[in-house]
Amino acid sequence: MVGVSDRKQFRTLTPPEAVHDIVAELEIDAGAETVPLTEARGRVLAERLDAPIDVPGFDRASVDGYAVRAADTAGASETNPVTLPVTGTVHAGEKPDIAVEPGECVQISTGAVVPPGADAVVMVEQTRSGADGRRIETAVTPGAGRMSAGADIAAGERALPAGTRLTVREIGLLAAVGVSSVSVRAAPTVGIISTGDELVPVAETVDSESGQIHDVNTPTIAAAVTEAGGEPRRYPHVGDDFDAMAELLERASEECDLVLSSGSTSASAVDVVYQVIEERGELLVHGVAVKPGKPLLVGEIGDGAYVGLPGYPVSALTTFRVFVAPAIRAAAGVPEPEGATIDGEMAVEERFESGRLRYIPVGITTDGDGTRLVYPVDKGSGATTSLTDADGVVAMAPETRYLASGESVTVELFSPDVRPPDLLGMGSSGPGVSRLLDTVGGTRPPRYLSVGEREARSWLGDDVPDFLVVTDGDGVAAETIGAWTREWGLVVPKENPDGVTGLDSLSDDLRLVVQASGTGLRAAFDAVTDSPTGVTGPGVESPARRVAAGRADVGVALRATAEQLGLGFVSLGEQRLRLAVNPTRAEKAGIGRLKTAGWETAFDGLAGYELIDAPNSSSKSETR
Amino acid sequence: MVGVSDRKQFRTLTPPEAVHDIVAELEIDAGAETVPLTEARGRVLAERLDAPIDVPGFDRASVDGYAVRAADTAGASETNPVTLPVTGTVHAGEKPDIAVEPGECVQISTGAVVPPGADAVVMVEQTRSGADGRRIETAVTPGAGRMSAGADIAAGERALPAGTRLTVREIGLLAAVGVSSVSVRAAPTVGIISTGDELVPVAETVDSESGQIHDVNTPTIAAAVTEAGGEPRRYPHVGDDFDAMAELLERASEECDLVLSSGSTSASAVDVVYQVIEERGELLVHGVAVKPGKPLLVGEIGDGAYVGLPGYPVSALTTFRVFVAPAIRAAAGVPEPEGATIDGEMAVEERFESGRLRYIPVGITTDGDGTRLVYPVDKGSGATTSLTDADGVVAMAPETRYLASGESVTVELFSPDVRPPDLLGMGSSGPGVSRLLDTVGGTRPPRYLSVGEREARSWLGDDVPDFLVVTDGDGVAAETIGAWTREWGLVVPKENPDGVTGLDSLSDDLRLVVQASGTGLRAAFDAVTDSPTGVTGPGVESPARRVAAGRADVGVALRATAEQLGLGFVSLGEQRLRLAVNPTRAEKAGIGRLKTAGWETAFDGLAGYELIDAPNSSSKSETR
Repeated sequence: MVGVSDRKQFRTLTPPEAVHDIVAELEIDAGAETVPLTEARGRVLAERLDAPIDVPGFDRASVDGYAVRAADTAGASETNPVTLPVTGTVHAGEKPDIAVEPGECVQISTGAVVPPGADAVVMVEQTRSGADGRRIETAVTPGAGRMSAGADIAAGERALPAGTRLTVREIGLLAAVGVSSVSVRAAPTVGIISTGDELVPVAETVDSESGQIHDVNTPTIAAAVTEAGGEPRRYPHVGDDFDAMAELLERASEECDLVLSSGSTSASAVDVVYQVIEERGELLVHGVAVKPGKPLLVGEIGDGAYVGLPGYPVSALTTFRVFVAPAIRAAAGVPEPEGATIDGEMAVEERFESGRLRYIPVGITTDGDGTRLVYPVDKGSGATTSLTDADGVVAMAPETRYLASGESVTVELFSPDVRPPDLLGMGSSGPGVSRLLDTVGGTRPPRYLSVGEREARSWLGDDVPDFLVVTDGDGVAAETIGAWTREWGLVVPKENPDGVTGLDSLSDDLRLVVQASGTGLRAAFDAVTDSPTGVTGPGVESPARRVAAGRADVGVALRATAEQLGLGFVSLGEQRLRLAVNPTRAEKAGIGRLKTAGWETAFDGLAGYELIDAPNSSSKSETR
Repeated sequence: MVGVSDRKQFRTLTPPEAVHDIVAELEIDAGAETVPLTEARGRVLAERLDAPIDVPGFDRASVDGYAVRAADTAGASETNPVTLPVTGTVHAGEKPDIAVEPGECVQISTGAVVPPGADAVVMVEQTRSGADGRRIETAVTPGAGRMSAGADIAAGERALPAGTRLTVREIGLLAAVGVSSVSVRAAPTVGIISTGDELVPVAETVDSESGQIHDVNTPTIAAAVTEAGGEPRRYPHVGDDFDAMAELLERASEECDLVLSSGSTSASAVDVVYQVIEERGELLVHGVAVKPGKPLLVGEIGDGAYVGLPGYPVSALTTFRVFVAPAIRAAAGVPEPEGATIDGEMAVEERFESGRLRYIPVGITTDGDGTRLVYPVDKGSGATTSLTDADGVVAMAPETRYLASGESVTVELFSPDVRPPDLLGMGSSGPGVSRLLDTVGGTRPPRYLSVGEREARSWLGDDVPDFLVVTDGDGVAAETIGAWTREWGLVVPKENPDGVTGLDSLSDDLRLVVQASGTGLRAAFDAVTDSPTGVTGPGVESPARRVAAGRADVGVALRATAEQLGLGFVSLGEQRLRLAVNPTRAEKAGIGRLKTAGWETAFDGLAGYELIDAPNSSSKSETR
């Protein structure tokens, strides 16, 4: 294992534009393959397809009626019909057993073969039955009521050009010309190698005490590869051993058109990959002048192309999207997706010292006038929740040091399928809020950031959230539309082995855990005690879960959480929360949905909770 | 079989709005199912997902450096460092075997567990090696250089709300919290039943003399069902027999959440379906006031929902998109796709007598100023090429009788994946044009409508096409950028059994076929003969293919076609074609690509063709 102090430095960072060019030069094209029509949707035609047959293959009746020689109908009208004896019938799917002779007609169904001799079809609605045959009440010209063979598409015509993406409609045309399997651009196979001793596959349990974390990048990048038109191939996890890594990279290179390594944040694992590429292949890029993404590697191993992505998920996905996805799309022949970017205005000012191209994770919301607001989401390096709390990234040029509030920016979405939510809340978290939000209708579920009350109030100052959930009586200038109380207290193991009865029971012998500062429960606890030890993150349930896992003796928790986890609970009181609407968003459709949400249902049967004020309740009580 | 004169009339057409409501009431929801994370992309979360674990699960170093007690670094700076003995090392993925005691430090890697005692990590870059330990050159506060357990997401927090569409980023979050399989809305199973005796599966050969055609609707609607979030199930073709149809519909109804019948244009097949639904189920809608789409059926059979689509492919796809897809999306929980509509201006005036809601197939192009032009594509009832020559439909309200040229319209694309081409040509067809267009670069292949010269000139008058391919000397006011000649003549079976030597050989004993009027070859033939018999559609190869199939004795064809099909050929001369650019489009990027296309390559080795003028040739000759 390579020690911390020996790790490689990135001495020369390649400019991003040069990296684009180098990646574009990699040969990852997978050629063509033949797929059945039933699997062709979304694929890209490898070569021009000319119609192999005429469609229709015969002169086809386009109405129900009577096949005639047009000349026989000359001068016919409703008042002066021509009567033609009916000498036979042709249905769709039948070979005509009769020809239309002068002065005669043949009954015909839509889609049937126009029999020899006939050059037109008179619609049944323009005929009547008569004693000596069919009374034709209109004059028709040759070609009327029929489609000539090949008139839809003629054999040999260019039906679809190479490069056509096969959507539903092209499937229809291919079916019409009898093409049941089709040559399409093969999806490049993209190997994904996860590195780093600390990573554990998603399906396995992490041993947190040993610093294990789930391998986030393999499934994320695999999904991104699929989205870009590639075929992901997942390789088993490998540690930091040079020979094992070299063997795996070389095998993957043989089996794939492109190999991506991804996963570890540890310098030693990254360095092993770097050394393998340098010794066994060719390293073309070692470090890019972009943040995040500096440790990007580009090279070749065996006969194949290689890109090493940075370890943090947001960095890995961003650099994949910026540098790798275009090359996969080009190889697959897939056009750049529409809707992969969204324009908006910065909701707040954003500053930094840079000197490098920078991608800032941002969320998107809409203000009361329908203007799209873009706000930075800075959850710190390596936060995976940036993926879902943000919607994409804003690129800032190296020379830009400042984005003004109100400035126009373009957001590159994490995926073209990303839809920013149309309702954004912030504040305290807990089962009551979660259940209430579950009952809000609409096609896009509300986004709720459990940032705690302090941060939520700060964002309200920047006019970003649509609503807050905060402790009652906090002085936030926002209209309350509903309020509830929640019972809180101390949570202990089920049998209460330490005999905790209240605050007086707390002592240095007991491992106490409480929520981090800035949360509603922490504020309640701080109000009745001195500053505590054993602080966890902002999660309302975290202390209780530590107690449940035997990693703490006492925690601060809601009664609802204690009951859910089957723990003992000592009540310390009730806390009143309110849902307050940003005054500039009162008219948003999402707020309307929030007001008509299932307030009663949400709080019904939730231990320790009581709904005291709901926007749609008949017995609305007075609040602040 | 039901006779033509007995067929059902649609006596009461249901208004489209009512049909939407009736379809929305059908119960096609398929509940929830559990899928592995690797298959979750694009699916919709069935229930709220709270984080089952803290992420990270431990206090995690976010930099490479030294774990310290922050208090020990008070006052430290580059000039006044604090030296702390290094008592151990913790790598990522390791359980710390040492605690940080006051006045000591532990070397730590990014991602590793911050050892007990330490409350901060100093970056390696802000330290140096020293004689008695590590020289710490900066003061840090508690929490620096680390992420607390649960700070990314805490156990019990609302991670993703129900109804979330799982894109790449949500896959990442699910992986982080260790969710390897997830409960998603099940895709409703949609049975597709193809009816009509004349239909043949795509993989089989049609017997054109018996009026057979390929079943276009089954693969098209199946692809559209997939696109809408459903799971298509194809049923074997069934004829017009009542009992067989009843058995099939009832079985499909048991196996599917929704059954669609589709396929036939014959009244008898439609009537059988109608009778089965009426007698064995419940018919809710029989005919809709919409064109196309009048014969739409909505009902129930067995316990299941049923919709009968009209027979013509454009009608079937349009009514599916308008009436059925929203219900499938709602059941699947899939939001309406972005980019399913495009706004533009009518390129020409469009009039009709209506009284019913009408959907007009339209193509989309862009004029020289970048304005999106919408032009009607009217290829007649039942033309499948309308699917690819058009891009979607424009809805016209019943009371609208007139769309003015320049009027703003919204195009409902055949699919949200449809991309209108950025280069539109029209005119003569043939292997030369096809090969030239193959060499035009860009992400979207050019659209070329082989409408013949006469119609192409008419569209040029409306300023729709970007370029034409027409016979030289036709007087079209468009700048020639390239020209070529093609040899044409009479095509005969390989051995020339009738001893055809030229025009003089033609007689009533020989079955002669020529192209339809308005095409370049027909014009050439008309110039040297009287009006011919045996006219086929506009396809340049159709006569030759008829000769090859033994269905004609002599045809008009290009030498290139005769050679390609291995037929005999009697030359009648050369025809000069030119590629002429619409003057208003000279600056379009697509025209630039056309000029730099592979002109030499395209015509090289193509029998009977000679390139005489190319925009990128060095020896450019003079043309008109």
